[in-house]
Amino acid sequence: MIILGIDPGLRTTGFGVIQKQGNKLRYIASGTIKSGEGDLPTRLKVILDGVGEVARTYNPDCAAIEQVFVNVNPQSTLLLGQARGAAICALVSADLSVAEYSPTQIKKAIVGTGRAVKAQMQEMVVRLLSMPGMPGTDAADALGIAICHAHSRETLTLIAGGTNATANGPLAGLRMRRGRLVG
Amino acid sequence: MIILGIDPGLRTTGFGVIQKQGNKLRYIASGTIKSGEGDLPTRLKVILDGVGEVARTYNPDCAAIEQVFVNVNPQSTLLLGQARGAAICALVSADLSVAEYSPTQIKKAIVGTGRAVKAQMQEMVVRLLSMPGMPGTDAADALGIAICHAHSRETLTLIAGGTNATANGPLAGLRMRRGRLVG
Repeated sequence: MIILGIDPGLRTTGFGVIQKQGNKLRYIASGTIKSGEGDLPTRLKVILDGVGEVARTYNPDCAAIEQVFVNVNPQSTLLLGQARGAAICALVSADLSVAEYSPTQIKKAIVGTGRAVKAQMQEMVVRLLSMPGMPGTDAADALGIAICHAHSRETLTLIAGGTNATANGPLAGLRMRRGRLVG
Repeated sequence: MIILGIDPGLRTTGFGVIQKQGNKLRYIASGTIKSGEGDLPTRLKVILDGVGEVARTYNPDCAAIEQVFVNVNPQSTLLLGQARGAAICALVSADLSVAEYSPTQIKKAIVGTGRAVKAQMQEMVVRLLSMPGMPGTDAADALGIAICHAHSRETLTLIAGGTNATANGPLAGLRMRRGRLVG
């Protein structure tokens, strides 16, 4: 199963593609879509086309997107909402189901605490996907969303079961504690 | 020139299609797209597909959409932003240029005051387009946006010129005062 994770933003939209085979997670691709300096409709089109292109290229089975929260600046909230709307439109246009996770849910699934900082998220994403290098923060966030979705689709209990099925996978050496992976 | 006006909303998106021939405005179509009761991605897809269908059906030359404002409830602002993003995505996917007008600009262009109430807007839209019946408020708002765009594309001064070119058109009997149409 191939999962596409999206970290929406008006300026930069992160994407991350992973493959889940049994209990193993494999990195496929990640990157960012920059909306440029045009007017709002033009920038939304860049996001729509960019996410659509990612979907066509990697042909995922499903998608997940981060829930965004209201900003201190309501105008920013409105802009972010429109960018997120454009990204979701690209996903549903590609006939993908779209799951939504809050930043806290994602951090808990990846790092184990909802108060994890960016650097911890990046580090765990690299470890969980056995990546050779460090992705940028937007791409790492998007990969984190995809991993969160991979974990939620089939209960983590299976991964942490007595058979130690992940001994050779990217989750090797990790254990379950209160529903989350721990090192 | 055919102009498509969009009044965006998560629950109901209004659309209005008018034709501008010289100084004359002609009503073509109007209606609403209801996003139903599904989850957010499903509702955004209804808006995307619905606005796209309207664009395919009436083949407008350009589009205009209402600027939305931050709500007292930031969560509502976020939802409205996503709905507006979906509508804009449908328009740019149809290769339409998208102009944006504030509610105040639209009310000023149609009724002559930025503080006009809904009923006044509806009444003026009916008069300007010689409509036989009263459209619903969302459709009337969308038609108002299209009319606002029609007025802004070519200066109103031309319409109000000495030749009285609109004597038989929908603007007959209206005069210009301080850049707006008055009865």
